[in-house]
Amino acid sequence: MNHYALILAGGSGTRFWPLSRNAKPKQLLDLFGQGTMLCQAIDRLKGIVPPENIFILTNHLQEAEVRRQAAGLPAENIVAEPARRDTAPAVSLGVGLIAARDPQASMIIIPSDSLILDTPAFQALAQDALNLADREAALITIGIKPTWPCPSYGYIERAEKLDDPALSHNCYEVVRFREKPDAATAEQYLASGNFSWNAGMFIWSVPHVRRQLAAHAPELAGFIDRLSQAADAPQFIRDEFPKLTPISIDFALLEKADRVLNFEATFDWDDVGSWISVGKYLPKQEDGNVSNSPVSTIASANNIVFTDSGKRVALVGVDDLIVVDTGDALLVARRSEADSIKKVVATLPDELL
Amino acid sequence: MNHYALILAGGSGTRFWPLSRNAKPKQLLDLFGQGTMLCQAIDRLKGIVPPENIFILTNHLQEAEVRRQAAGLPAENIVAEPARRDTAPAVSLGVGLIAARDPQASMIIIPSDSLILDTPAFQALAQDALNLADREAALITIGIKPTWPCPSYGYIERAEKLDDPALSHNCYEVVRFREKPDAATAEQYLASGNFSWNAGMFIWSVPHVRRQLAAHAPELAGFIDRLSQAADAPQFIRDEFPKLTPISIDFALLEKADRVLNFEATFDWDDVGSWISVGKYLPKQEDGNVSNSPVSTIASANNIVFTDSGKRVALVGVDDLIVVDTGDALLVARRSEADSIKKVVATLPDELL
Repeated sequence: MNHYALILAGGSGTRFWPLSRNAKPKQLLDLFGQGTMLCQAIDRLKGIVPPENIFILTNHLQEAEVRRQAAGLPAENIVAEPARRDTAPAVSLGVGLIAARDPQASMIIIPSDSLILDTPAFQALAQDALNLADREAALITIGIKPTWPCPSYGYIERAEKLDDPALSHNCYEVVRFREKPDAATAEQYLASGNFSWNAGMFIWSVPHVRRQLAAHAPELAGFIDRLSQAADAPQFIRDEFPKLTPISIDFALLEKADRVLNFEATFDWDDVGSWISVGKYLPKQEDGNVSNSPVSTIASANNIVFTDSGKRVALVGVDDLIVVDTGDALLVARRSEADSIKKVVATLPDELL
Repeated sequence: MNHYALILAGGSGTRFWPLSRNAKPKQLLDLFGQGTMLCQAIDRLKGIVPPENIFILTNHLQEAEVRRQAAGLPAENIVAEPARRDTAPAVSLGVGLIAARDPQASMIIIPSDSLILDTPAFQALAQDALNLADREAALITIGIKPTWPCPSYGYIERAEKLDDPALSHNCYEVVRFREKPDAATAEQYLASGNFSWNAGMFIWSVPHVRRQLAAHAPELAGFIDRLSQAADAPQFIRDEFPKLTPISIDFALLEKADRVLNFEATFDWDDVGSWISVGKYLPKQEDGNVSNSPVSTIASANNIVFTDSGKRVALVGVDDLIVVDTGDALLVARRSEADSIKKVVATLPDELL
């Protein structure tokens, strides 16, 4: 079996403060009582990629928790980036680790912090895409059908559909990548019907991506060549990874690549970017209130309540609030002011971050 | 020293839920970081009544916590009522306990759940009143100058001022007691200037109150007579107290008594009846927010925040809330709906009460 997977789990952030902290960001949280998003990402690959072929990239702050949550994987498959260097160096590190194991591998790269509920649909598409990567010289992406003109996602513009009878999913040639458009442009994208959201998932063969990097990002291709031959890979990573130029994989490779394909996702997808997004998946109570904890309400509607303790929360005469409780911090925010949560987080002492 | 004190500490209730529970109501809470209201009531008597002369009445649910908080008093001075029987039986139980110790005692009765910050002023008045009780055949009360037409307090109507050169405080003859008036009547009381709030504090000599009870409430006088002579007082209380008719001391005695006097309080007084009252005494933060915990705010004003853990509370875009956090329950209520807190409490499972 020469199919491999790389899970990118190095994301940081306190968007879900007070539940998320620098050492425990979104992908390491159990927001929905079904395991953490990282555990769900690992489970999502079951039957597609054997556990010994799954790699996880993280960072030193989160490494201990990632190892705890990914205890079913070989310890040497979990690698902490010695420095933060954006997605192109991270992807190259993963390609190098897999190339050292199997230079002819095909691989799928998935983020650890997206919510996908329809696992069978994901697995069928991932299998189709890996099989295509085995035989096509292309960089393969997965596109999510946009439901609103979100200005903070990357968009992929599609051209004609592939006419490949071996495929069981719709797959398109890609015209180009478009980073975070302004609102008006996003509206046009949505209206045209030719654009999909970039889900940050990539499928390719190791030989092909190395050839493409050699052509368009030689620094990264050289890094992969040397890592795949290194006698002491951990030492090589510590020494050489921090020297790489920080750049996103979209800019470094995908926008320049000779051929990019785009599968149309047949599964649900949510990047769960805020407490309001979380609210969509929490158990529904009366009057539009949602909560993962027992809630008692009087004249209160449309509140999002989350506790890490399962404590009782009583609401009296309050609407449209976000209430998040943890052992050492409590957040009460107006839903319409959710974007200002980061402002209050910015004022907090380090020990609460 | 034949001066004694009786602290009534059997009040129950969940008005301060989730902080207060049936086994730990208001008087057993440390709301202001200066000790519980019961501890403050005990301290308030220092120098007026020796510790061995201070009695506390409580109930079985709260007895253990009361004994813990009143560890400086003789254990036998803390008595749990075997049943709830309103204030006249409770007061009679206290009179009987003190009569057994010293039939010639004078005593002051104080509630355990009022906030009084000016201790020296309280002590000066209490001393004046006890001295008066030693020499005057009267039931003495303390009146609080009303600041608003509160319809839920008892009012005392005063007549002429005593002309007693030995007194260092203003003291008046009482015309009558008025229980909880309607709003219009309360307005009239306030306008007349002859009414004060009944603070629930009583001062009298044991011989005089026994004579008055014998005349107006013989069942209670008989109970006191037998208790003061009982060979096994605890057994007598267990057997006989539950048989007493439930009635308030105002109805049973004070409204009928031959002579009632009323001292004009020279100290501050607050019965701290709600979280909004508590808010008046919590440390003030920016924008009208008050909290006993560290608070970080963005665009948030006039919130009352209380935690029993001292955890950080972050407020974003919220105004006029009451936020109270404990280990197993969290309350978020609109200030204007504070009266509805009891409605949500009524829906809660027993283990949270």
